[in-house]
Amino acid sequence: MINVAVFGYGTVGSGAVEVIMENNAVIAKRVGDAITVKSILDLREFPGDKYEDKIVHAVNDIINDPEIAVICETMGGVGAAYKFTKMALEAGKSVVSSNKELVALHGPELIQTAKEHNCSYRFEASVGGGIPIIRPLTDALTAEVILSVCGIVNGTTNYMLTKMDKEGSEFDDVLKEAQAKGYAEADPTADIDGHDAARKIAILSSLVYGKTIVSDDIPTEGIRNISAKDMVYARKMDRKIKLLARYESADDIVYAMVAPFLLTPENPLYSVNDVFNAIKVTGNMLGEAMFYGKGAGKLATASAVVGDVVECAKNIGKHLPCDWVDEVVELKDKPLSQRRFFVRVNASAKEKAAELFDIDFELNADFTDEFAFVTKKMSEKDFEEKKNVLGAEVINNIRMED
Amino acid sequence: MINVAVFGYGTVGSGAVEVIMENNAVIAKRVGDAITVKSILDLREFPGDKYEDKIVHAVNDIINDPEIAVICETMGGVGAAYKFTKMALEAGKSVVSSNKELVALHGPELIQTAKEHNCSYRFEASVGGGIPIIRPLTDALTAEVILSVCGIVNGTTNYMLTKMDKEGSEFDDVLKEAQAKGYAEADPTADIDGHDAARKIAILSSLVYGKTIVSDDIPTEGIRNISAKDMVYARKMDRKIKLLARYESADDIVYAMVAPFLLTPENPLYSVNDVFNAIKVTGNMLGEAMFYGKGAGKLATASAVVGDVVECAKNIGKHLPCDWVDEVVELKDKPLSQRRFFVRVNASAKEKAAELFDIDFELNADFTDEFAFVTKKMSEKDFEEKKNVLGAEVINNIRMED
Repeated sequence: MINVAVFGYGTVGSGAVEVIMENNAVIAKRVGDAITVKSILDLREFPGDKYEDKIVHAVNDIINDPEIAVICETMGGVGAAYKFTKMALEAGKSVVSSNKELVALHGPELIQTAKEHNCSYRFEASVGGGIPIIRPLTDALTAEVILSVCGIVNGTTNYMLTKMDKEGSEFDDVLKEAQAKGYAEADPTADIDGHDAARKIAILSSLVYGKTIVSDDIPTEGIRNISAKDMVYARKMDRKIKLLARYESADDIVYAMVAPFLLTPENPLYSVNDVFNAIKVTGNMLGEAMFYGKGAGKLATASAVVGDVVECAKNIGKHLPCDWVDEVVELKDKPLSQRRFFVRVNASAKEKAAELFDIDFELNADFTDEFAFVTKKMSEKDFEEKKNVLGAEVINNIRMED
Repeated sequence: MINVAVFGYGTVGSGAVEVIMENNAVIAKRVGDAITVKSILDLREFPGDKYEDKIVHAVNDIINDPEIAVICETMGGVGAAYKFTKMALEAGKSVVSSNKELVALHGPELIQTAKEHNCSYRFEASVGGGIPIIRPLTDALTAEVILSVCGIVNGTTNYMLTKMDKEGSEFDDVLKEAQAKGYAEADPTADIDGHDAARKIAILSSLVYGKTIVSDDIPTEGIRNISAKDMVYARKMDRKIKLLARYESADDIVYAMVAPFLLTPENPLYSVNDVFNAIKVTGNMLGEAMFYGKGAGKLATASAVVGDVVECAKNIGKHLPCDWVDEVVELKDKPLSQRRFFVRVNASAKEKAAELFDIDFELNADFTDEFAFVTKKMSEKDFEEKKNVLGAEVINNIRMED
């Protein structure tokens, strides 16, 4: 019998309990042993809950229980979650996590702790919800040099951008609606300003490169500035605006960024709508592969958590290795990396903009008080400098993905 | 040092050698040991080839070489490939394969042989080329009860259907062009009549169900009857015609089929074009996930072969288990499974068709000599009976995916 404990009986934690209990027969078959949830750690009481009798309030009730072999950390945050994970690993219990913030911040340290105590730290659920992405990247694409990873990894913003595109609505209205539906949180900053996406691409980048890409180092731009007018221009170009999280490496240069991009229909990410996520991986032999599915949601995320439980349960007493060492990599943009930019300026700044930028083509959407155009290819640095000259005359700009 | 041998120096075999040699440094790091190709079995000579000195003509030169631990079977066919794979496994050498015909026919037997000799039989490359699909299904989605697998798994036919849709061209012309470009073989039967897709869904179905679904038992319809006129009707319905390979199970009922379907834009398979493949997996907790990429091609397929080599190389002397036992499952369509059908009949049979079928809606595409309509939902059996009454009056019919 494999006994599992859960840290945090919230959405994902209760989902993990449900998955283990509902799919118990197939999971036991795959583990090769019976499996059950023995204890659930939460400060709250859950009177009347089906698993009320499993609730414990002291972490040591789990840490000191020699019968518990695997723990699902579904608490979130980087305080208690970090401390409890560390304690569990030091006690030789494997920990699986859906906590992207903690993984991005302390991943390699926790992997090392697990190694020292012959147990494992796994976190498939921290990126892409139920979509298998970490395991395919690290266990399947092992013959590849991974050149880039580019994905839509935040469901909230993708839902909002899809809605704005389909209905012509404004950012603030769509945000309110997303909050009402539970797709966006009361404080939506982490989602709409791109921090959640930055954490996820930091995790994927670190796994691919084998060293730490720090989430806070990643140039990050959210979708707060995207307006209904931008959507009108996007449609005129037959493009869609998507918030992309990207990683690229070539030789010793590593770069990552989070920003909205204008995609063409040829890009497989173009048709990824609503709360769906998709991650495109490019390898030097493979070319492109893409992984698509629901990037969030109670049961989908819990399914990934429990998939990791199965792997740990099959390897009790062993460390499942992970090639991510605790050494920070400095991000550098490729010196030759160039792209086009879509830019809107006040009508009064038209001449000045035309002088500053090499314009590829102009766009007319019958908004009389502004001038919109797409630049020729240029570097981020070059663009930034010219944009600064225009200052407050720039209404918005969005990168073009070719 | 891990020594690898290759059976068959054709497209995929030479690709596997290239991947191992080109990406040698990253592969060695992942294996944890140096890796090289020691011998290549092929009846032909390759004068001037970079690896000419590695060519051997006698299988026993490899079987009896104690230094060789892993073999890539990239010969194709089910004669010599079967015999040589069996010999290699019996000698305790792991075999990885891209040979879907052999895996579909002898998979569980070869897995069993591998088990008895503490080595492994792996075949990620047999479905979806370079797309990781087998490993995600068997190693990642382990918390799921898999309800269905539905994919575009044949690049040749997807290329042809995309071309017919975009250019309005006829089947025969597109086939000739695909043959000229090397996308279709001189004898295109296996692709266009759906047998290749049937083998691939047989493999995926067997892995999901754990018992053998026989490829020849799968009701299989290819794309030979699809015409430029069908594409016109599809566009009128805002649908696309795709050749789908499907597996479904519920309780003890298992069903699989290969046939063209009319898909709506909401289906993520709708936007999978050209030679790309994609496989959609539905789990009871996860909902849908989709895996997308190039389903064929020398280096993409070779990358999957070598990914399996890496796994075997990390597990020398051990058997990597695979839950597929040698017991044949009888396919049964769900008694209640119903769908709509798009039907074209000669204009003269309009009245008879309207009497026979519950018509959902008629379609008018200005082809005066025919009558086209979509039925209400009905079972395959019911449809077949009514279609038989109309006999040769039916020009074509295609299933609707809702």
